[in-house]
Amino acid sequence: MELHGCNILGAQVSKSGAATFRAYDPASGRELDTSFHEATEGEAAKAVEMADAAYASYRVQPPERIANLLDQIASGLEGAGDELIARAHLETRLPEARLIYERARTTGQLRMFAALAREGSWVDARIDLADPARMPIPQPDLRKMLVSLGPVVVFGASNFPLAFSICGGDTASALAAGNPVVAKAHPAHPGTSEIAARIIGEAIRKTAMPPGVFSMVQGRRPELSLALVRHPATRAVGFTGSLQAGRALFDAAAARPIPIPFFAEMGSLNPVFILPGALKAHPAELAQKLAGSVTLGLGQMCTKPGQIAAIKSLELDLLVEKLAALTSSTPLGAMLYSGIAVRYRDGLLQRSRVAGVRLANPVNATEASDGATVSAAVLVSDAPTFFKDSTLSQELFGPATLVTECGSSEHLEEIARRLEGQLTVTIHATEEDLREYASLISVLREKAGRMIFGGVPTGVEVKPAMHHGGPYPATTDPRFTSVGPAAILRFARPVCYQDCPQQWLPPELKDENPRNIFRLVNGEWTRAAVRASF
Amino acid sequence: MELHGCNILGAQVSKSGAATFRAYDPASGRELDTSFHEATEGEAAKAVEMADAAYASYRVQPPERIANLLDQIASGLEGAGDELIARAHLETRLPEARLIYERARTTGQLRMFAALAREGSWVDARIDLADPARMPIPQPDLRKMLVSLGPVVVFGASNFPLAFSICGGDTASALAAGNPVVAKAHPAHPGTSEIAARIIGEAIRKTAMPPGVFSMVQGRRPELSLALVRHPATRAVGFTGSLQAGRALFDAAAARPIPIPFFAEMGSLNPVFILPGALKAHPAELAQKLAGSVTLGLGQMCTKPGQIAAIKSLELDLLVEKLAALTSSTPLGAMLYSGIAVRYRDGLLQRSRVAGVRLANPVNATEASDGATVSAAVLVSDAPTFFKDSTLSQELFGPATLVTECGSSEHLEEIARRLEGQLTVTIHATEEDLREYASLISVLREKAGRMIFGGVPTGVEVKPAMHHGGPYPATTDPRFTSVGPAAILRFARPVCYQDCPQQWLPPELKDENPRNIFRLVNGEWTRAAVRASF
Repeated sequence: MELHGCNILGAQVSKSGAATFRAYDPASGRELDTSFHEATEGEAAKAVEMADAAYASYRVQPPERIANLLDQIASGLEGAGDELIARAHLETRLPEARLIYERARTTGQLRMFAALAREGSWVDARIDLADPARMPIPQPDLRKMLVSLGPVVVFGASNFPLAFSICGGDTASALAAGNPVVAKAHPAHPGTSEIAARIIGEAIRKTAMPPGVFSMVQGRRPELSLALVRHPATRAVGFTGSLQAGRALFDAAAARPIPIPFFAEMGSLNPVFILPGALKAHPAELAQKLAGSVTLGLGQMCTKPGQIAAIKSLELDLLVEKLAALTSSTPLGAMLYSGIAVRYRDGLLQRSRVAGVRLANPVNATEASDGATVSAAVLVSDAPTFFKDSTLSQELFGPATLVTECGSSEHLEEIARRLEGQLTVTIHATEEDLREYASLISVLREKAGRMIFGGVPTGVEVKPAMHHGGPYPATTDPRFTSVGPAAILRFARPVCYQDCPQQWLPPELKDENPRNIFRLVNGEWTRAAVRASF
Repeated sequence: MELHGCNILGAQVSKSGAATFRAYDPASGRELDTSFHEATEGEAAKAVEMADAAYASYRVQPPERIANLLDQIASGLEGAGDELIARAHLETRLPEARLIYERARTTGQLRMFAALAREGSWVDARIDLADPARMPIPQPDLRKMLVSLGPVVVFGASNFPLAFSICGGDTASALAAGNPVVAKAHPAHPGTSEIAARIIGEAIRKTAMPPGVFSMVQGRRPELSLALVRHPATRAVGFTGSLQAGRALFDAAAARPIPIPFFAEMGSLNPVFILPGALKAHPAELAQKLAGSVTLGLGQMCTKPGQIAAIKSLELDLLVEKLAALTSSTPLGAMLYSGIAVRYRDGLLQRSRVAGVRLANPVNATEASDGATVSAAVLVSDAPTFFKDSTLSQELFGPATLVTECGSSEHLEEIARRLEGQLTVTIHATEEDLREYASLISVLREKAGRMIFGGVPTGVEVKPAMHHGGPYPATTDPRFTSVGPAAILRFARPVCYQDCPQQWLPPELKDENPRNIFRLVNGEWTRAAVRASF
């Protein structure tokens, strides 16, 4: 597949603007060969308007056809073979094995949403049958289900060029719910994005869906992102990225004349609390687990453990020493793009210069790197230092973590109390620790979307019981998740039909339950048909 | 019960500020006897801080105890007897029969949420069991459920002094989910609010809940409302009221350093589309139904039909004539407070002066009223006039409606296309109409939270299949409802427990399912216990 570098507006390619940009190989700093055309605000508007025009026909597609579209995208991603992986590797320097795994995750997500659409119970149908005899007034027939919202704008993340980008979970869940999508490619992997967008376009062609159902725009300017969020026909937004960008777009969505649902997942510190019994029992093993989690994907995970808190002890010294040794022996690597590496190095330097903070690694991680190449780092501070400098409690994207040596269990609880909202909180504890630290656990539950016991925060299962979300600033709305089937709830709303004649009801709400979905009928969950009520 | 006129901060009464205000009898304009103390920003902060302090203990209360609290509030409302009804009548001039019905609705809501908490399945528990054999990495045990958010601020509405105020659905659903509540009384019925707040306080005392679980503040200043929304410990807001106030508070919630879930229900136009077959079949009966709905509660319903659209015909003339006659014969009545009556009369006058708009009533409704007393009105325009002047498509709170005489079915569809978000859309149609106007119906579904066939929009059932919500400006988030059990979802968020030892899991997620709730276990809904996994 020869890259054309254009924006993709439905079935058309478009390059109205003069500005172009290039992708880089982050390892060498070498500019890659295709020029990508920055979308203009006009192209952004056209993409949303095409989505809006396609919406009327897309939202009434039978679920089977929507499922086929999603399955077809999954097959297309597999069919793109090495080319997709090679381009993604070149643009991100994520290892090919990891990208192959990420593609499997992505196709898995697409097929999960296809299955969800096909099975159909996700619409959460609820039926309360009429009661003409009710006093003082007859009770009407009420039937409610979830329906689509309209055009959804999706912002691709830098760190998952497939699973959280053009063809990722936001796009899959929005499409599954019956919403057209306009995706904004992350400028660090425009070629990967183009390949993914063309695969989606081909799937749309093959399944004879309206072309406006999907568009993709390229660009680096915040104005482009803002134009997408502000367009009157945009009905919802899904975003994965930094707090700064996420908040700016959230603010724009909230300030619209008609505010829209906006979900941003913006990462977090993902603190790990190691309680005394667990620390004493196996410090070396913990160091091993944590080193793997901190350096996984060069620390470019929204669930990377950025803080480790434990009570000062010989075992903690051992853990720190081993963690430092293990992370230091992690091979140097190139981050996703040079800007992110610069921020990592600057952040590390800034933190390591805070009075009371030391770098535990034998090699100076702030120096042993250049360009996009960085090395892993373990910072250590005591609790008062941590409390004094708010920089230390901010996420540092990259392979670094901060160990906070606490003087007491009060320090641990104080850290917990001061935490901002988190995607995850991890607890290593024996049964006795859990009994002794019950109030700590109780404080932590208020802070996080996911509580992990004895494991590591990296590794987000795509499952019904997963919650990849959390209180702000982890996300902009703690009630939603961006991973797992519940991610579809971000992009759907209930509609109630009152006394609607049978033949005009959507299939999901008809008496005979032709979709054979699970429904709450007069308070009982069932797949059974309803007695004829008209 | 002697009214004290104070703010109620947990178990204490408080009157730190110098400013006071009085309630009025809207019928006579007479000032009522108690002086109410405007809460200061300090009192607002104290209320939220008490709620926050009580939260740690309230959120871990067994559901049975929370249910008892809600039941106790319901009994207390009944126990207050005539005194509550009399005061509410005096402050609102809503008929006593209506207020007795509203109280029954309110106690019904409280008991519904008590039953929901007691039964427990509302937490939407989902369990994916561990699979240690999964390749390439073992699958952890994941268990997710909904939990509370923290202190919720509730703004009482003027038009439902019980069902959507201090002791209404917002308070009931927030408490049921484990959140303390700080309620802001509507200044038009401060006495009713005080009685309700004291009943809640008494229920808290009787059930030995922490007193900070509920506070109520009085006041008329927007600064007070803003202080409640902006307080850092406030975690969510429920509001019922005007678009202007709702939007101002929404903006404040979104602009917080930590934005919070905010749900405002702000009413709507609730258009009624009468299609030709239905109009021809029974114009007089339709006029009767609609007159009842327009004037119900003196039009002070968020679901009052504010627009009636049909194709110009002899039958439509007949309907307009009859509707005008019926509404004109509605007795004059006092609106909730004089400000709302002034806005109604001004709005009516403004609309009736638009070129192309005529008042169909024999009596001039813009003149035949003073003080809070108003009369019902039917305005009539053609479609081009309606399209030209945007005032005509804005909600006019009170007993008025606008009939739009359309020249063609294209006009009807144009009206539908131009509609803003609505709580409801009503369609009167024969089977043949529905076939012929399928595309109109399809456009309407995108605009509303509830589609009513053959009925009237007033009358909002408190049922699982109800959706009292809709796209902006009907509400600030189309994904939530303020009526029915699903209203609790506004005030809860998921938490996932990963590999949590059995004894530390909440009861809802334990293997043996001690709460006997409905759970999604490995993709199947069941009340069965789970095989021991630890």
